[in-house]
Amino acid sequence: MGLSERECLDLLASRSVGRVVFADENGPLAVPVNYVMDGEAVLFRTAAHNTLGRHLRDAVAAFEIDDVDDYNETGWSVLVRGRTTYAESDELPTAEDALPYAWPEGTRALVVRLSPQSISGRRLLPG
Amino acid sequence: MGLSERECLDLLASRSVGRVVFADENGPLAVPVNYVMDGEAVLFRTAAHNTLGRHLRDAVAAFEIDDVDDYNETGWSVLVRGRTTYAESDELPTAEDALPYAWPEGTRALVVRLSPQSISGRRLLPG
Repeated sequence: MGLSERECLDLLASRSVGRVVFADENGPLAVPVNYVMDGEAVLFRTAAHNTLGRHLRDAVAAFEIDDVDDYNETGWSVLVRGRTTYAESDELPTAEDALPYAWPEGTRALVVRLSPQSISGRRLLPG
Repeated sequence: MGLSERECLDLLASRSVGRVVFADENGPLAVPVNYVMDGEAVLFRTAAHNTLGRHLRDAVAAFEIDDVDDYNETGWSVLVRGRTTYAESDELPTAEDALPYAWPEGTRALVVRLSPQSISGRRLLPG
């Protein structure tokens, strides 16, 4: 059952950890990050020298969140697809709590923005 | 902090829902599925006519599981990268509970096998 874009954006705003989905020289992969929303764009931090930083300067990528309860056979997932760019500091939100905070592995100076071309989601229902 | 392949396989065996990561004509994406392990391979069900079925007959793909607690700033993630094929019925586990069970959206006749070329994982620690 499809979710509306409004429902997807509400779910995205309600969470703080999701997965960046992109491709490197060995194919597609997904890496969990924490994130914040800036309107309909996803912002997350990384470092320019690591896998995310090296591949997301200008890339086709996606961002996925979900919450699936296998025992009760219920859940939902949301997928944002678009392009990533390095966010320039003058285009970032100015409030401190509107910026993503990267706790895994320490300071990461680079903020990546995923600008959506599509936002879709579905509710998972028992078959 | 990197996890050993043994730790990754133990984590994979301990869960039942993860994300298939692959690419379609619009780039990389991730879709949650439930799954079982068959040795070091990941098995999940789909239908031949849907997005997963159409793109995974012979594809470079990945499978991701994670458990991240943003509040406590702890967690882990595991990534299996390899190739997918349609699993032939004579190469599937024979025990009923060794087969993946697809509850989202009803019956799915096709079993896809992701055969790993690499299995990696890391523990996420506060910065």
